[in-house]
Amino acid sequence: MMKLNNKFKQFGGSLEFYTHESSSNNAPMNFAIFLPEQIKSQKLPVLYWLSGLTCTEENFMIKAGAARMASKLGIVLVSMDTSPRNLGIDGEDESYDFGSGAGFYLNATDPKWSKHYNMYDYVSDELPNFIEENFNVNNIKGISGHSMGGHGALTIALKNPKKYLSVSAFSPIVAPTQTPWGQKAFEGYLGKSKNDWNMYDSCELIQLSKHRLPILIDQGTEDEFLNEYLKPELFQNVCSEINYPINLRFQEGYDHSYYFVSSFIEDHLSFHAEHLYS
Amino acid sequence: MMKLNNKFKQFGGSLEFYTHESSSNNAPMNFAIFLPEQIKSQKLPVLYWLSGLTCTEENFMIKAGAARMASKLGIVLVSMDTSPRNLGIDGEDESYDFGSGAGFYLNATDPKWSKHYNMYDYVSDELPNFIEENFNVNNIKGISGHSMGGHGALTIALKNPKKYLSVSAFSPIVAPTQTPWGQKAFEGYLGKSKNDWNMYDSCELIQLSKHRLPILIDQGTEDEFLNEYLKPELFQNVCSEINYPINLRFQEGYDHSYYFVSSFIEDHLSFHAEHLYS
Repeated sequence: MMKLNNKFKQFGGSLEFYTHESSSNNAPMNFAIFLPEQIKSQKLPVLYWLSGLTCTEENFMIKAGAARMASKLGIVLVSMDTSPRNLGIDGEDESYDFGSGAGFYLNATDPKWSKHYNMYDYVSDELPNFIEENFNVNNIKGISGHSMGGHGALTIALKNPKKYLSVSAFSPIVAPTQTPWGQKAFEGYLGKSKNDWNMYDSCELIQLSKHRLPILIDQGTEDEFLNEYLKPELFQNVCSEINYPINLRFQEGYDHSYYFVSSFIEDHLSFHAEHLYS
Repeated sequence: MMKLNNKFKQFGGSLEFYTHESSSNNAPMNFAIFLPEQIKSQKLPVLYWLSGLTCTEENFMIKAGAARMASKLGIVLVSMDTSPRNLGIDGEDESYDFGSGAGFYLNATDPKWSKHYNMYDYVSDELPNFIEENFNVNNIKGISGHSMGGHGALTIALKNPKKYLSVSAFSPIVAPTQTPWGQKAFEGYLGKSKNDWNMYDSCELIQLSKHRLPILIDQGTEDEFLNEYLKPELFQNVCSEINYPINLRFQEGYDHSYYFVSSFIEDHLSFHAEHLYS
């Protein structure tokens, strides 16, 4: 089932860290869940948070300062590790941007990774089902994330538009097939065929989407990865070509760090609350 | 002078990390400062934050979620490392509760430590002077801290009651001469004479105080160190004997962590603002 690793009272609610066995990844996975106090008397909606490269389930809960507003609004927060770990796969810990801590929220097809690196299935399907079975939550969901996790949030929401009522992202990798982090990861996990890459690229996926999801994106103008690794203008251009309304905000002077995320996380929680409680 | 190590925009303000040469400690010291946006147009008061065992200047800025309210209220936040580091003193890195990361906000008299371990002078005098000379702050100050840093905040304020307008603490070591962390540190830094220890013990110092400082203390009831290491009731008893009004709040279910601090930091900032802006 699941093992409780740690538990902290915060803002009247409970922040809990768990390990459970993931069937998608054939490996143990760690996640964290913040349960506002209101959960004692009612089923609450959930915001899934997907972190960026190198992060674990802990970073968001420590650094983003999200619990204050989540406890006010009555939103459960769930964050998960960014990959399974310690699997003994050759090279799994070699790079910060591939293997451990860099699951990229996809299902690997390369035989070396395909048994254990299925973060797409884990995050979009297995984990929400598990959360809905084991905690007092309803099936109303939003999804958000940072950097690689912003890529994860956008792609998962675009592929499952009826599953999530809202999606937001900080500094997302919107065009992984056209930028170095994505290209390295996709080649390693998916092989060389670019057709296979497109199913995990927000710029591609949004062109196939009929549904219109509410999308909020914040991007710092002083983000050290902006021009080479992120390129939000590529997403903006596609969206404007197809008349898909998104709210992409460039935040003057902010960088890629969680100090940036913390500055605007409450805007994102309010945005999600509007849809999760509509 | 000082070296800027890192700088982040947060909540419209600027979070900056510095190293400078400390004359009190005869060593380089690290500090962090959060400067709200209002600093561009007016001199602001400062809240000094003293961290607990093992912490650096970074922990509070990452984990407490204080910048949101500090930026609202117009309060500069300053946190500092909990000791000088990498001095080559035999045994300096041996324990988590003595030496590096455990300066205890005192001036060491033991010859092995006395050249470099003078965190009392550094925090109560050198650093505030340095901050007032180098940043657009006024000389209005409050002081706060956590655990060993709560001990530091209380003792420094009680010894300098006209310097600080308000003092607060989370889970402070109020009676270091009667509890294990304090006893180990005081014997190591100050020698065996208990008279010398008393000048760094809040329960002793408050009995000598004529001034009445506003004091707010939060203590979690599920704090794993409560009964052996902290014993806030000792302070409560002394204060009630001498009719020194303090606001000591026991917070049901909270532990010793920064998740606890984050849950009530905004109360503390509001408390300080009341006095810093009165």
